[in-house]
Amino acid sequence: MSPDRKQIVILGGGFAGVYTARYLEKLLRPDEANITLVNRENYWVYQPMLSEVISGSIGLANVVSPIRRLCRRTNLVTREIEEIDLANKVITVSPGFRPRQLKLHYDYLVIALGNVTNFYGMPGMLENAIPFKTLADAMVLRNHVIRTLEEADVEEDSELRRKLLTFVVGGGGFSGVEVIAELNDFVRAVKGNYIRLRNEPHRCVLIHSRNRILQEMAEPLALFAQKTLRKRGVELILEDRLLAATSEKAILKSGVEIPCKTIVCTVPSTLPPVIQKLNCAKEKGKLLTNTCLELKDYEGQVWALGDCTAVKTVSGKEAPPTAQHAIREATTAATNIAATIRGGQRAQFAFEGLGTLGSLGHGAAVAQILGVKLSGLVAWILWRCIYLMKMPGLNRKVRIASDWALHLLFAPDLAQPKLQPESGIQNPLFAAGDVVFQQGDLGDSVYGIEDGECDVLQEESDGSQKLLATLTPGDYFGEMAVLSDKSRNATIQARTAANVLIIPKGDFDKLRHSVPAFGEIFRALAKKRVESTAEPVVNRSDSAET
Amino acid sequence: MSPDRKQIVILGGGFAGVYTARYLEKLLRPDEANITLVNRENYWVYQPMLSEVISGSIGLANVVSPIRRLCRRTNLVTREIEEIDLANKVITVSPGFRPRQLKLHYDYLVIALGNVTNFYGMPGMLENAIPFKTLADAMVLRNHVIRTLEEADVEEDSELRRKLLTFVVGGGGFSGVEVIAELNDFVRAVKGNYIRLRNEPHRCVLIHSRNRILQEMAEPLALFAQKTLRKRGVELILEDRLLAATSEKAILKSGVEIPCKTIVCTVPSTLPPVIQKLNCAKEKGKLLTNTCLELKDYEGQVWALGDCTAVKTVSGKEAPPTAQHAIREATTAATNIAATIRGGQRAQFAFEGLGTLGSLGHGAAVAQILGVKLSGLVAWILWRCIYLMKMPGLNRKVRIASDWALHLLFAPDLAQPKLQPESGIQNPLFAAGDVVFQQGDLGDSVYGIEDGECDVLQEESDGSQKLLATLTPGDYFGEMAVLSDKSRNATIQARTAANVLIIPKGDFDKLRHSVPAFGEIFRALAKKRVESTAEPVVNRSDSAET
Repeated sequence: MSPDRKQIVILGGGFAGVYTARYLEKLLRPDEANITLVNRENYWVYQPMLSEVISGSIGLANVVSPIRRLCRRTNLVTREIEEIDLANKVITVSPGFRPRQLKLHYDYLVIALGNVTNFYGMPGMLENAIPFKTLADAMVLRNHVIRTLEEADVEEDSELRRKLLTFVVGGGGFSGVEVIAELNDFVRAVKGNYIRLRNEPHRCVLIHSRNRILQEMAEPLALFAQKTLRKRGVELILEDRLLAATSEKAILKSGVEIPCKTIVCTVPSTLPPVIQKLNCAKEKGKLLTNTCLELKDYEGQVWALGDCTAVKTVSGKEAPPTAQHAIREATTAATNIAATIRGGQRAQFAFEGLGTLGSLGHGAAVAQILGVKLSGLVAWILWRCIYLMKMPGLNRKVRIASDWALHLLFAPDLAQPKLQPESGIQNPLFAAGDVVFQQGDLGDSVYGIEDGECDVLQEESDGSQKLLATLTPGDYFGEMAVLSDKSRNATIQARTAANVLIIPKGDFDKLRHSVPAFGEIFRALAKKRVESTAEPVVNRSDSAET
Repeated sequence: MSPDRKQIVILGGGFAGVYTARYLEKLLRPDEANITLVNRENYWVYQPMLSEVISGSIGLANVVSPIRRLCRRTNLVTREIEEIDLANKVITVSPGFRPRQLKLHYDYLVIALGNVTNFYGMPGMLENAIPFKTLADAMVLRNHVIRTLEEADVEEDSELRRKLLTFVVGGGGFSGVEVIAELNDFVRAVKGNYIRLRNEPHRCVLIHSRNRILQEMAEPLALFAQKTLRKRGVELILEDRLLAATSEKAILKSGVEIPCKTIVCTVPSTLPPVIQKLNCAKEKGKLLTNTCLELKDYEGQVWALGDCTAVKTVSGKEAPPTAQHAIREATTAATNIAATIRGGQRAQFAFEGLGTLGSLGHGAAVAQILGVKLSGLVAWILWRCIYLMKMPGLNRKVRIASDWALHLLFAPDLAQPKLQPESGIQNPLFAAGDVVFQQGDLGDSVYGIEDGECDVLQEESDGSQKLLATLTPGDYFGEMAVLSDKSRNATIQARTAANVLIIPKGDFDKLRHSVPAFGEIFRALAKKRVESTAEPVVNRSDSAET
């Protein structure tokens, strides 16, 4: 191995990261540099087609491409990035099978980590809203939607059935529009297979903060998109935004509440935590670079590109977070790294964009390319041709074309592969009035109040409800039914907004068997409750009785 | 609705259950009976092709078929079955979004629940071995294998790398043989994409308890299969069996230990718990029926078929657990239910089987059909033709044929979609000598000993290891590094076989914040440990110090 061989480390496997590696493989000889790419997954996601996974018009595996095949000479490290140390030129990545970190030393670094969904300041969103960025998000959403249909088909309670058939998407950018269009297409296409849902209406609601969707496009195209979506049955709520979520509803800024069991949020985003921690120049919450894409104060050493960076073109315009820009940024960065190693002319980023394209579901799209505006079926066919052409590799092109052909011929798939049962300790938000559990429900979890208040209600023989107690932070409840394997003997309803810790029965049992002191806390409570019949399911953590 | 309309409930959505529903839809008019099918998933799995999911030669979604499309007039309830009450003719199914059970009343019942993997008496298998029955199993296995390759590519420790590249399958029936063959094909095909694994050997080991694999077939075919597998690099261990597993190795009955990170177990199976609880006649652990497939003592009311039943043909032979038998049993059961409702001649089960087929990986198979024995490529082509023909529906036939064609043209896919990070409270088995964690590792979990003993070892400055303490059941350890966010200051090694409770940091933090008494237990321990430097990571639950 040549002692002069430089270590190039690329962080992130999106368009920017993967294309940088591909260009570097072309520009540099193997004896000039080792290229290493660090990414959480071993595949690259073709973001423009991600929403098609919802309806299954593209198979799950075909919307991604293995990075090892795209960059054959690059060392791929499929781990999380834990720390970027710019001073010592070291990247720390997360442990694998053994809990030990790995450290990578670099001569040249490329930061292309994109952004992440940020639910900060939006109570209950983390637990109840599904983001839409990764392949896992798309799979989770697809499976969740099929589950709501399965449940709606069985459910007797018409109010719950309506909630199960309501789908809310926040954000009217390209991503949000494509998600609501695909969701609506999918539910319409498969509803006929559910005997009891055939004639039942469903609601698809898109919420956007501005006075029209698709701000990135000219107004006539956006208005065409709105008309098309409405004609297909999508409700649009403009000049409003998602504020909070519970397991029963979406809560908007205007105070409007939408009872539903499915909330997708495509906004807002923020820098990944590992970049937030970086002590370097930033602008509007993004990394600051020059037009050669060098990170300020680390010129000739660190390049930053893609959605985590505030890239400006030579003309001073800000580059939008699209695939076409990321690919051109990758060319610029790779050229400049090669120039740094070999000497030579540096490139400046000067790409101004070719246009924008957005799908509105099957057979309709809007496009604005090199100044020409297109809408409807023509734009949709153009959309498919352009994105198919831009997918790298013959393998994936053929697979996607074959998926599309099959999707035209046959009804969409509706198998719901359940992986692990949802479990683990959680702490969701309940809104005032939400029911935590109902009298007669099974005792499947133990609860504790982190903040907020909950009422304990018991149904009398005459059908009225009697308030037995009000619980406050530090109280826990629900252990009686779990310990005795019986159903709940009272209803718990949130009096105010409340964060509640939920320990599933399985975890609760493991803990009380292995940490005897933990079990003792609850056994003592249960015993006290049996003695005091006035307070059947609840107990204060202190000894005061209500 | 006609008051005479009978309620038919079918439990289980495998070959037996789904085909019973399909035949009943043909035999009975909608006004004669309501048909309800209860299954955990909303899809039916085409078991003969399940192993092809491992190599991706069939897409995940194409090896299953939505039950709603296969049985369009049947009400599908996608829930777990919790109780079968034969006396009162009621089926209780698990809760959905709301924790409340659903009760289904029936006039006629079909039990076709198959069997489940049973690791009873095989320590550590539940935590460390992957069963191979469901689609979820196949997905988990595929993702696990890709993860081991990703990790092996990064790993510096050659011993761990060898473990990561060793794949062990227990059971040399059709399922086990197909799994090891697909696994071996897949690893061979994709290894070239891993720069550091290209020239590294991998091990695929098949373990079988008898003196030859594929007992269901004639000896010459089984020997051909063994020769083919060995030629392709699969190791066969005969007359031995999997006894136990840890996260580091497979332990065989003979005492042989195979260091590995992947264990698949295709044996043994048992009745689903809900049938085990049933108080009715059984034979060899299976439900006992007559040749009309009626459950003993419930004739004219309950039919039992498929793998959960000891079905005998008219000639007295036992029907093996294959798809072809399940389909014929379904015809018999459906005919007899229709006869019970309408009156008429009952059918007896008299199918003697057409033959057996087993795949040995790409381009090789063994077949024994109507007395003719075939092996090699001819048998493999026959295998594909027969199973493609038997897949119901043109949609799936076209999709599978297209998958196969693409698989011949292109390299297998190696994307590893990570869904949820593995987490939650666990209690795995460690074998004597296994390391629970190593000095210098990250503090990512808190541990408690359920049974067995563990040594606390600290590395001295001269490189030797000093025994600080031995931990016994009831002791817990590892909270120091978690509470202070530091790395481990000692190694914990199992002295005997030990069951250890593991609470991940995330769950531990939620618990100690919401159940203050729980946090107090560990804070007190940590404080005591700081005072006693002789015992740095460990503490007894009582106050005795070692």
